[in-house]
Amino acid sequence: MSAKNLAKHFQRIGIFGRLDSKSVENSITKLMHLLLELEKECHLEQSIADVLPTINCISASRSAIGEWADLIIVVGGDGTFLSAARDVAQFEVPMLGVNRGRLGFLTDIMPSQMERQVREVFNGEFVIENRFLLLAKIIRDGHVVAQSCALNDVVLHPGVSVRMIEFDLEIDNQFVYNQRSDGLIVSTPTGSTAYALSAGGPLMHPNMNALILVPMFPHSLNNRPLVVGSESNLCIKVDHYNDLPPHVSLDAQTHLTMEQGDELHIVKYPQTLKLLHPKGHNYYDICRNKLGWSRKVENEEQEPDL
Amino acid sequence: MSAKNLAKHFQRIGIFGRLDSKSVENSITKLMHLLLELEKECHLEQSIADVLPTINCISASRSAIGEWADLIIVVGGDGTFLSAARDVAQFEVPMLGVNRGRLGFLTDIMPSQMERQVREVFNGEFVIENRFLLLAKIIRDGHVVAQSCALNDVVLHPGVSVRMIEFDLEIDNQFVYNQRSDGLIVSTPTGSTAYALSAGGPLMHPNMNALILVPMFPHSLNNRPLVVGSESNLCIKVDHYNDLPPHVSLDAQTHLTMEQGDELHIVKYPQTLKLLHPKGHNYYDICRNKLGWSRKVENEEQEPDL
Amino acid sequence: MSAKNLAKHFQRIGIFGRLDSKSVENSITKLMHLLLELEKECHLEQSIADVLPTINCISASRSAIGEWADLIIVVGGDGTFLSAARDVAQFEVPMLGVNRGRLGFLTDIMPSQMERQVREVFNGEFVIENRFLLLAKIIRDGHVVAQSCALNDVVLHPGVSVRMIEFDLEIDNQFVYNQRSDGLIVSTPTGSTAYALSAGGPLMHPNMNALILVPMFPHSLNNRPLVVGSESNLCIKVDHYNDLPPHVSLDAQTHLTMEQGDELHIVKYPQTLKLLHPKGHNYYDICRNKLGWSRKVENEEQEPDL
Amino acid sequence: MSAKNLAKHFQRIGIFGRLDSKSVENSITKLMHLLLELEKECHLEQSIADVLPTINCISASRSAIGEWADLIIVVGGDGTFLSAARDVAQFEVPMLGVNRGRLGFLTDIMPSQMERQVREVFNGEFVIENRFLLLAKIIRDGHVVAQSCALNDVVLHPGVSVRMIEFDLEIDNQFVYNQRSDGLIVSTPTGSTAYALSAGGPLMHPNMNALILVPMFPHSLNNRPLVVGSESNLCIKVDHYNDLPPHVSLDAQTHLTMEQGDELHIVKYPQTLKLLHPKGHNYYDICRNKLGWSRKVENEEQEPDL
Repeated sequence: MSAKNLAKHFQRIGIFGRLDSKSVENSITKLMHLLLELEKECHLEQSIADVLPTINCISASRSAIGEWADLIIVVGGDGTFLSAARDVAQFEVPMLGVNRGRLGFLTDIMPSQMERQVREVFNGEFVIENRFLLLAKIIRDGHVVAQSCALNDVVLHPGVSVRMIEFDLEIDNQFVYNQRSDGLIVSTPTGSTAYALSAGGPLMHPNMNALILVPMFPHSLNNRPLVVGSESNLCIKVDHYNDLPPHVSLDAQTHLTMEQGDELHIVKYPQTLKLLHPKGHNYYDICRNKLGWSRKVENEEQEPDL
Repeated sequence: MSAKNLAKHFQRIGIFGRLDSKSVENSITKLMHLLLELEKECHLEQSIADVLPTINCISASRSAIGEWADLIIVVGGDGTFLSAARDVAQFEVPMLGVNRGRLGFLTDIMPSQMERQVREVFNGEFVIENRFLLLAKIIRDGHVVAQSCALNDVVLHPGVSVRMIEFDLEIDNQFVYNQRSDGLIVSTPTGSTAYALSAGGPLMHPNMNALILVPMFPHSLNNRPLVVGSESNLCIKVDHYNDLPPHVSLDAQTHLTMEQGDELHIVKYPQTLKLLHPKGHNYYDICRNKLGWSRKVENEEQEPDL
Repeated sequence: MSAKNLAKHFQRIGIFGRLDSKSVENSITKLMHLLLELEKECHLEQSIADVLPTINCISASRSAIGEWADLIIVVGGDGTFLSAARDVAQFEVPMLGVNRGRLGFLTDIMPSQMERQVREVFNGEFVIENRFLLLAKIIRDGHVVAQSCALNDVVLHPGVSVRMIEFDLEIDNQFVYNQRSDGLIVSTPTGSTAYALSAGGPLMHPNMNALILVPMFPHSLNNRPLVVGSESNLCIKVDHYNDLPPHVSLDAQTHLTMEQGDELHIVKYPQTLKLLHPKGHNYYDICRNKLGWSRKVENEEQEPDL
Repeated sequence: MSAKNLAKHFQRIGIFGRLDSKSVENSITKLMHLLLELEKECHLEQSIADVLPTINCISASRSAIGEWADLIIVVGGDGTFLSAARDVAQFEVPMLGVNRGRLGFLTDIMPSQMERQVREVFNGEFVIENRFLLLAKIIRDGHVVAQSCALNDVVLHPGVSVRMIEFDLEIDNQFVYNQRSDGLIVSTPTGSTAYALSAGGPLMHPNMNALILVPMFPHSLNNRPLVVGSESNLCIKVDHYNDLPPHVSLDAQTHLTMEQGDELHIVKYPQTLKLLHPKGHNYYDICRNKLGWSRKVENEEQEPDL
């Protein structure tokens, strides 16, 4: 469906956010006024409605809004957007992010430009991207005992800092390696600018159907980040002789605990995030801005001289 | 087409190699005997035929053989295979590699197993992989003045060691960054275990449709390897104020020179390499073997004690 | 003092170890017999004496032995040696390490060579090295509330994996940087082959008077390992807005907890470890053996061909 | 000698520079006027005197000035300073750097502050640092056939980009490793912010007596930067089977060529650079400014949310 046609269906609008700053409150209030003016129906996340005077908006839970809405606007940082995306991932409702002052990779509407850019979105002037999520399942005796999804990354780790974990990795039933390390980051392209990047992983364009596996402080110097297809079935078997139970963190926000003998399976999540950007969006522009690519180290000393 | 059906067409067999060791000579001689026994037609690369007694084999140029053959068997190291693959890439003839003593990523039939494994290939017992190549074109005043293909990598560099090059990178007409560095490696998944790995790039499974861009000693500490889709159109504009003319190396074996104001365009090569492996082939087995993943650094000192 | 003269004073011998394998038990028993034959006085660590039949050896605490002994022989892995070294660091008694089967950086007498090499040590045939330790002090309201020493490294971290810590670093009262990361490793040259190496730090020859500071997954891509003099005074101020109390780990074996507003001071420990190696010891030999330097990745594909 | 006492001897002043910008010309002209006013004797580097009207200054060669002067002021970038430092290293004359607009690690007087800060230097208000240089000697049949010094780094490489070199490294007559790579960077602490940093080496405080050895794209994944004492004797033996003659670059500005069978010896240069900085100089301030440490990647997505 074209952006124009898709925009015609944007009648029921959900608003999510995290009231951690005055700037977020202001943006949400302005947004409610704008939606009122545009004659949209509006549902506001319960936790916001509890503290902020609402204008013509009904309050509801995130998942109720996810099921009902044609579009969800998230006001806050990328962290807020991550949790919102996981909460409504199953509904595949398009999502738009308004940040709280500084540009995010996921929340790329500036508060000062919000009114104009949100109007443009309703006019069908936007860029839409499909971003896949991961589904992590903990398997015990052949049954799924816990599962959760992640937009950025699934991280296996020992729970406690400065401790080691040992595990076997299989991809599509092929043994890859046994690793002793502080853990393993399994990142989507979306997560490639987050924790995986700090740990030495490559940047990956968000349109890629690929996963990045980044070992955390591996004991072997031979271990390097590994890129495999997003349809891969990952199976991690944690050795019985680890004295700490392994943990799994999803987007560093949701945490699961494993028991000895459990397996961690990671696959692509069946539904896809429809991420909206303001028109003119360019991934590399945001990289240059956020990662400081425009900045040069002036290594003049290496220039030939004389 | 299934491996079984494909194997039925393996009637005209080309043999390529590099006579740099007695072991290669022995393997080629054995191979000619085997093909004679199996009643296959055999063409031998001219440079080998010039020095090795042939048995029932006609000698021809690589490209004539590429056009004629149903299957090409390359005897030598991965380096020999790379040059062979580039020479016949346009014909999309299936290729099989016999190494000269130590396992390669591309030449993974051991001389000691050759007779058995080649027989198996003719019986349709093999694994076939599609590996894409890159096409590098030098554009001057809007015209292609030089072009060549690469299976591992296209490297832009200043020709001379310990010198800097400055360039702009565009991908699909989007400006990515201006970079000052010793050069840029653009690698296929096939090349991800070669030069790109030494330069800090990730490993990438060979079935990925992706490119890895690895900056070489970038002056900015913010530059990291970047992974993009293999259908991307890369355009590199070398700044006019570089005092050395930029060079382009393909698989570190073929070299092109640019002039000031030229552009380097890199796209996917239209034809695909059909790479045959012996049955039971597993990419990760070769990684463990070649990259030493099985080896552990025994960092016992980090283990809790007492 | 020369090795010959020093060896003449090796009359009172302490034995430390960790009874985690039959091989350690055997080595300790053999060692007791050898010391009996050589007419040395022998004190055995209490925890070993509790379970192993002693021969002519008195059992005592580590610190009592540290004060009494002329030489301490540690049987076990490098981890066992680290804890032993911290326990008796203040006494500056020479230490020798016998490993439990595979070569260590600190325990480099092989069980099979033990009898011969220990005899040689008593004959003054050994290499002696001074290794410095670090002293970490937690300062609250101007007072030291906790302190401990480390031979490998002092690590500041948030206690829990996959969480961030933010802190300011000052060296010799000069502000260095504010860092957001998973933590900071401050390593001695001895620790440069351990956790710091996994985190991307350089190797450092053990005779260097230098510290290596390695950021753990820093949020800024500009952060790199930093080498400063071992006489430096490090002061780390953890920001008040960290929601987790910072932790400090010493050799990954001893753990201290900080409160908000505390400072972590790291200085050189006043006493020095006298580390004995068998004659012919060469640091680089051990690096090649333990780090796999002798192994080459056979990147033949990068070799020019044809 | 104290800065105050040393400053009293600053009577004969040499001026070096590189006339690559109007800003350098202006600074040199202002400097000559200032020295005239302060009644200092002034000698100007010949190549500047040839094109710039001099005021009361005699022109001479760099080495003649080096022998005569009490203080040399270099106007230009860090690259200009490097070549100046090598040219007069043997005379141990104090040196001060005025940059051409942007802060350097070696040239840290801003043109706009020059008059005030140079007056302060003559009043003894400055910070003085000893920086050691390296001496690289090419040994053929037991004789030195070429030698030169470097302030930043000595780099062994094959001359041509994207080519490999294989060599053995010995330190103080101990075999360290055989390496196949694009080359080896041997850096001083001064050079640790230059080429060695781009190649993955650590930063090192300039007061350290240490060398950093950084392999360039090593074929083995086990190779890491290595830090050893500055008094070390390095001997590099290039294997006979390299098909390209090895090259040696000093500060990327001076280049030597080796023949097959030659050895490269690297030792500390006997004389020391006396580097002057304006008062209040702080190494870490310059690092933060030049390396962008003040900039943070806003990885908000990793912050816990909800």
